[in-house]
Amino acid sequence: MLEKNDHYYMLEALEEAKKAAALGEVPIGAVIVYKNEIIARAHNLRETTQNALTHAESMAIQEACKKIGSWRLEETTLYVTLEPCPMCAGAILQSRIPRVVYGARDIKAGCVDSLYRLLNDARFNHECDVTEGILVDECGQILTDFFKAIRERKKQEKLLRKQQQEK
Amino acid sequence: MLEKNDHYYMLEALEEAKKAAALGEVPIGAVIVYKNEIIARAHNLRETTQNALTHAESMAIQEACKKIGSWRLEETTLYVTLEPCPMCAGAILQSRIPRVVYGARDIKAGCVDSLYRLLNDARFNHECDVTEGILVDECGQILTDFFKAIRERKKQEKLLRKQQQEK
Repeated sequence: MLEKNDHYYMLEALEEAKKAAALGEVPIGAVIVYKNEIIARAHNLRETTQNALTHAESMAIQEACKKIGSWRLEETTLYVTLEPCPMCAGAILQSRIPRVVYGARDIKAGCVDSLYRLLNDARFNHECDVTEGILVDECGQILTDFFKAIRERKKQEKLLRKQQQEK
Repeated sequence: MLEKNDHYYMLEALEEAKKAAALGEVPIGAVIVYKNEIIARAHNLRETTQNALTHAESMAIQEACKKIGSWRLEETTLYVTLEPCPMCAGAILQSRIPRVVYGARDIKAGCVDSLYRLLNDARFNHECDVTEGILVDECGQILTDFFKAIRERKKQEKLLRKQQQEK
């Protein structure tokens, strides 16, 4: 049996990311752990739901609030494959999650380390303990593969259109 | 008939804030306008729902996504009585709302002008046109009154406990 460490839980978050990829959604997954048990799990569903708030972290937080019966998610750890965006970093602050572990950095929109350090600003009424880089290669690769496949598909479609026009 | 300007819509957001106050919730309200019509309205429900994401703006955004059938809320304006927190500012970016109008500043957690200017950072893939200060006194006063009432109630409760102990 696998030891239940950060690596173990990040693998579970990656499983969620794979579910998103299978639906054609940008593959990002998250799980929330309370007393060594996963109490919430979610994957990005923005295109499926057409709801701007359905990022993996935000949905996992809502699920965990439901499970715990409180908007305060004390004693929990959130694992997410990609560095949270401003909305999800804000949701983490709002739910008072004490610890956040993420895989790959998001240099374009990440608000934990890349563009801002929202989870470590003493002016807010909450700060988090942050660990980054757990399964960083796997968490990054699944995104790289996803966007590469999209580009390939678009290229093929363009070629097909061109061939049809030349007929 | 009142002209449908920023003042008019902010009065509607204030009506939402009053509904929150009546429930014992921190009185913050929001409406989203599309083609001169209010398509979503919501008030803070954090204590009632025990869900960390149920801020006025986040709920209004989700309602508007449902109405429009898209996570992109193009051509909409969001009116909110208080300057948005990081989560709600992030949700505004995620839903691509082009214009945000707010009443009072939140000097402790506001992320539009006070602590950060998240809606005007060219590094993100979206920026907003922001108007602040509409009905600023009314939007601030409802919050001041709410917190004053809470302090008064706590003071009375403390006094009552002391009197009972002295009996």
